[in-house]
Amino acid sequence: MSPENAPLVLVSNRGPVTYEDDGTVKRGTGGLVTALTGLASHRDAVWIASALTDGDAERAREAGGKPIEVTSPAGGTYSVKLVASDPAAYDRFYNIFANPMLWFIQHYLWDLSNAPDIRRHEVEAFEWGYNVVNEDLADAVVEQIDGVDDPVVMIHDYHLYTLPGLVRKARPDAFLHHFVHIPWTQPDAWRVLPTRIRNDLYEGLLANDIIGFHTRSYRWNFLQCCRDLLEGYEVDFDAGIVRTPDGREVWIRHYPLPIDWNATRNVASSPRVSEFEGQLLRRRRDHLILRVDRADLSKNVLRGFSAFDLFLEQHPEFSERVTFMAQLMPSRTDVPEYAEYLERIEALVAVVNHRHGTPDWMPIHLKLRDDLEEAMASYKHYDVLMVNAMFDGMNLVAKEGPVVNERNGVSILSENTGAHEELGEFALSVNPFDIQETADSIHAALTMDAAERARRADGLRAIITQRDPGDWIDWQLEDIRKKRA
Amino acid sequence: MSPENAPLVLVSNRGPVTYEDDGTVKRGTGGLVTALTGLASHRDAVWIASALTDGDAERAREAGGKPIEVTSPAGGTYSVKLVASDPAAYDRFYNIFANPMLWFIQHYLWDLSNAPDIRRHEVEAFEWGYNVVNEDLADAVVEQIDGVDDPVVMIHDYHLYTLPGLVRKARPDAFLHHFVHIPWTQPDAWRVLPTRIRNDLYEGLLANDIIGFHTRSYRWNFLQCCRDLLEGYEVDFDAGIVRTPDGREVWIRHYPLPIDWNATRNVASSPRVSEFEGQLLRRRRDHLILRVDRADLSKNVLRGFSAFDLFLEQHPEFSERVTFMAQLMPSRTDVPEYAEYLERIEALVAVVNHRHGTPDWMPIHLKLRDDLEEAMASYKHYDVLMVNAMFDGMNLVAKEGPVVNERNGVSILSENTGAHEELGEFALSVNPFDIQETADSIHAALTMDAAERARRADGLRAIITQRDPGDWIDWQLEDIRKKRA
Repeated sequence: MSPENAPLVLVSNRGPVTYEDDGTVKRGTGGLVTALTGLASHRDAVWIASALTDGDAERAREAGGKPIEVTSPAGGTYSVKLVASDPAAYDRFYNIFANPMLWFIQHYLWDLSNAPDIRRHEVEAFEWGYNVVNEDLADAVVEQIDGVDDPVVMIHDYHLYTLPGLVRKARPDAFLHHFVHIPWTQPDAWRVLPTRIRNDLYEGLLANDIIGFHTRSYRWNFLQCCRDLLEGYEVDFDAGIVRTPDGREVWIRHYPLPIDWNATRNVASSPRVSEFEGQLLRRRRDHLILRVDRADLSKNVLRGFSAFDLFLEQHPEFSERVTFMAQLMPSRTDVPEYAEYLERIEALVAVVNHRHGTPDWMPIHLKLRDDLEEAMASYKHYDVLMVNAMFDGMNLVAKEGPVVNERNGVSILSENTGAHEELGEFALSVNPFDIQETADSIHAALTMDAAERARRADGLRAIITQRDPGDWIDWQLEDIRKKRA
Repeated sequence: MSPENAPLVLVSNRGPVTYEDDGTVKRGTGGLVTALTGLASHRDAVWIASALTDGDAERAREAGGKPIEVTSPAGGTYSVKLVASDPAAYDRFYNIFANPMLWFIQHYLWDLSNAPDIRRHEVEAFEWGYNVVNEDLADAVVEQIDGVDDPVVMIHDYHLYTLPGLVRKARPDAFLHHFVHIPWTQPDAWRVLPTRIRNDLYEGLLANDIIGFHTRSYRWNFLQCCRDLLEGYEVDFDAGIVRTPDGREVWIRHYPLPIDWNATRNVASSPRVSEFEGQLLRRRRDHLILRVDRADLSKNVLRGFSAFDLFLEQHPEFSERVTFMAQLMPSRTDVPEYAEYLERIEALVAVVNHRHGTPDWMPIHLKLRDDLEEAMASYKHYDVLMVNAMFDGMNLVAKEGPVVNERNGVSILSENTGAHEELGEFALSVNPFDIQETADSIHAALTMDAAERARRADGLRAIITQRDPGDWIDWQLEDIRKKRA
């Protein structure tokens, strides 16, 4: 059977929908859901995910382990199987091991002279948390493909590194494809983990047939990790292949994720967005700088504001003429590092506004909320989009902004984002640690002539609208077919 | 002329001696001085170094740019040329750019979501500090080799990465050999630097004929950096060669630094050491755990004490039977991160002593001072030597301890130290971030049977006494001869 028609199982921690306590259905959040929606709703696919809410767990019990048909409020019908893990295990899995441990390792976020400390707490979070949830989801996968010939399982992200090994053991014939949505860091970053845990993660992951990343560099880093951190695996850098001790070949590939630019444009033309636009335009000054981010340490929010501070100091002629609008969605606020980060962001905003503001002008407008339509309204009217993440798997904002922006806005783009491999040529590239360079880029963007702005904006739009998530999936299915052949 | 007899110039920031204000001579501190002492005092060599004190600057002025003959109080006569840079430039060079910037990059010490911020301050520290001091020393080198055929210049450490480029420009025929005494980190760690500064550092360094590191991994990381961070350079990993755009070949080698174990043993048998031994033995309990370190963030002092805390909690039978003696030399206390680190060390010691101590027993004995003889006395009598650095170029304590220890003491050795490539087989290897593993290793070491202790101690002594710094220099001169041929 060709993989296009083979029964397909998707697995990820977060599914396409969640159930509220009252039984109503909400669209799942996050970029992964957006990316996979097309795949899951267009094909004969079952999407297996963790039950995240009490409502999810309730529906999972009712369904008795069978997939349920769900229509998402965002459109699309899915066949979904929700898997409820023991809540204590899930907490260890999610809040200790996947975040912050793996997330921090994969974004170079550990302040190593202070953290992490590996103690029983962390080791048990792996053994009695991460592994348990991976086993629960693996069991659901194995059950789902029971009796199916040539099943294809597509596994997603850093929550599920040990799952492929478990599925492989039960079903040596299954085709396992894993896509990692966050950066893959260089070998030394992985050395904070005990060797045994690190080996379990890598061996689990290398039970896949194909492992995909957003960029060439993550792919390269992964190959280097396999060479430097593992024993008995053979790494072919040119071919992008890892050979396992039991003689399997694992293909390491990169598939940069496109956005569904059509859907993005549709949202941008909705009535609620128009309302926000009205509000925005009433307050608009000569120039609008915009950032839209989850308030994550990796997003480099502080240095962005510091660069704006420096820009205003070095270019007082922009006083009262520019607003830096920052829409930040608070995130993981129960992790102390994140709560503290939000506090420091607010404090810095207060300082910059105090230092440069006037009775008629607040330089930074900070919005701590998650509202897609509100962000969309700002996307349409920015002059400068700032994406200065320290390290970022892809960064979808860098793609969403340019396809709806109506002012040939200039993108300031960190060279350490995945999006930079595709968009760097038409953006103002910045080293995210270099505040002076970022300040200079703000000035360059705000004083750029119209022709150059148009040239760059056209370039960005052309690249971003070249592909959509359907192509991204097809590209991966094509590799699955090739490897099977 | 063979390089053994060729006129030799050594360059390093810190020289073999410094002058006090009253004109008295003191031996220079630091591992580098120890390593090079043999070389400089046995051969026709001139050692060029920065004037570090007012006394140094005064002598430099008196000498009028000529080398002066100095006898070190530690023995040996040197021909030394001290170079006084502008104090403001030297301050930028040393206190902003070399430390912390390069030191932090090369030990993975940056807490990236907080620091560093690259602003004019940092860029100017490079341009008007690091470059100025490198130019001053390069001028002294060029002057020293003026009129000399086939001169050999041996350059040391992370303070002088741009010097080789300057010397090369003036003397394309000079043979330039650079040894880097600290780790070389992987490419992403270098991305915090602005591209232009990073290029200047790498291009300066690649003006050498040979670049040496302590270990195979640093050498490998350096080759990877050249491939990932530079354009126009060709990297041959198998041969360990970088080809520059102008067609030169740079050999990348590793030469692990041995200690002068004879000298170490001589110090250990001095009368002052005996006095300290007397004091030590009067207070000795069943077991003595020892660490001797500069109080640097990279040394991982806190996790060492946390592991001891955990060990005492899990093995209460050792109560009142063991002392953890920590001799830490305060270092760079004018850098806020270091001052804060010392405070946190003292606070943690207080907590552990409060938690486990008894009216007759203080579990941790913290000595914040630098006294070689006092350390030597402790070396002789430890049961366990803890070297758990997060990342450490070589770590000489791991070599000094075992050659004078009289109790077949067990070494707990971090797998991220340079010394681990040589000594790992006979030490208890630990992942420095793994507090549980470190605590387990303390227990394993304290309960190890005598035969196993002897086997390991013999193994360590055999490796450490196989070579001395003279061999290390000969090895490098041998490569210089080969490359010249």
